[in-house]
Amino acid sequence: MDVQKKNVLGDMLFGGAELFLPSVSVDCVIFGFHAGELKVLLLKGKHDPKWALPGGFIYQDENVEEAASRVLQERTQLTGIFLRQFHLFGDVKRTEQKHARRWLEEAGVEDPDSHWIMQRFVTIGYYALVEFEKVNPVPDEYSSECDWHNVLELRNLILDHKQIIEKGLESLRLHLNFQPIGLNLLPKEFPLKDLQLIYETILGKKLDRSNFQRKILSYGILDRKEKQFSGGSHRAPYLYSFNKKKYFKALQEGLNKEW
Amino acid sequence: MDVQKKNVLGDMLFGGAELFLPSVSVDCVIFGFHAGELKVLLLKGKHDPKWALPGGFIYQDENVEEAASRVLQERTQLTGIFLRQFHLFGDVKRTEQKHARRWLEEAGVEDPDSHWIMQRFVTIGYYALVEFEKVNPVPDEYSSECDWHNVLELRNLILDHKQIIEKGLESLRLHLNFQPIGLNLLPKEFPLKDLQLIYETILGKKLDRSNFQRKILSYGILDRKEKQFSGGSHRAPYLYSFNKKKYFKALQEGLNKEW
Repeated sequence: MDVQKKNVLGDMLFGGAELFLPSVSVDCVIFGFHAGELKVLLLKGKHDPKWALPGGFIYQDENVEEAASRVLQERTQLTGIFLRQFHLFGDVKRTEQKHARRWLEEAGVEDPDSHWIMQRFVTIGYYALVEFEKVNPVPDEYSSECDWHNVLELRNLILDHKQIIEKGLESLRLHLNFQPIGLNLLPKEFPLKDLQLIYETILGKKLDRSNFQRKILSYGILDRKEKQFSGGSHRAPYLYSFNKKKYFKALQEGLNKEW
Repeated sequence: MDVQKKNVLGDMLFGGAELFLPSVSVDCVIFGFHAGELKVLLLKGKHDPKWALPGGFIYQDENVEEAASRVLQERTQLTGIFLRQFHLFGDVKRTEQKHARRWLEEAGVEDPDSHWIMQRFVTIGYYALVEFEKVNPVPDEYSSECDWHNVLELRNLILDHKQIIEKGLESLRLHLNFQPIGLNLLPKEFPLKDLQLIYETILGKKLDRSNFQRKILSYGILDRKEKQFSGGSHRAPYLYSFNKKKYFKALQEGLNKEW
């Protein structure tokens, strides 16, 4: 990466197509868990009344994975987030809307219709699940707002971004079947009902308490803490913590290894 | 699609970049199950000593999913195969090898180094699991061979195609945790041990018989047939068939819905 890359906006507007991979973009679906709601982080363009996922383009000398992290950081100031690739959106019609035209015009680009970002793009979706309270999203220079939206109440999104979020949520739900979640979303020790709430929020439905407990404990990634009998009520629930070694092994190899 | 598209080779060589999405390709990992071995379908180029996945480019007016099916059909004559997208491979270095250069030269393309297919490409991997015996792979006009290779003995592949196959296999193994397989790989009625052999072959390990039976039956996608006591041995195993309605529902919604 050269220093020049720090001016991504300038590169995009006036740098020409040869700096970037033509026809491929990345979009990041950042899910946040807060008070029993699943939210997604969206940006509102300065010249666009619609909301959009944090997204951008890939430099010619940049791996796609690196581009996804850079784009997320530039557009929201969020760093250190593990992004998981989930789907490529490749329909012909997805970028027919030409939503960037007004933005190019207002930026003073000559002949916006033949600008490289007006061509057909396929986009690669990445998702992450983050702790809502730990992030302080800040919009970039071509956005006026950066805010959390309830995934169940999405309105007024550009292009196919609603569909991308829905597919991201569908992927997250499927991935729950073979990968652990929760490590960064809960305090060090927690009762099982708090973990159950996260699953219920993602799945969008209530779960049976004893089924949930049996299944989650069968994965062997939780350690139960001994109750402390000095002080608190005897009827307090058991507290658990993630066994990090087993948690990361399961992240790598998948849960459900009992085949 | 216009008729012109039938000459894909000509389009690629002499049609210019504007006909295709620049910088994006598709590659198909076709797994075949045969006699306890998992195989993958590979092509050998006429001008290349190495093997490659059936792959190709995306027309500007073609959805990426459509391109994957077309490419597979053109390069191997296989039709009607359900392809599942599994990963985008986007490293900068993946196409540095310029393996297409000799091919362009021999085809009489002027100035091969500036030909559009010599640029950086990201590729989208699709996989399918097919019944080995039902397919009769035929190479296309720029390949000399099209044949099955044992996934455990891959040698001499172009670019990152070995890595793509490995990732495809990893994806297939993970997907076994939430999606049914076997419908097109087994006769209408089969003993459970035949289905177990498919799982063992994909997972690359022996499974405990009673664990496997308990788990596979818990999915509720199999119907057990009554034993026919006229004729065959009383000790013959029960035969099962897939309940197609439940099977396709599980394909759509995922197994493991007992959360």
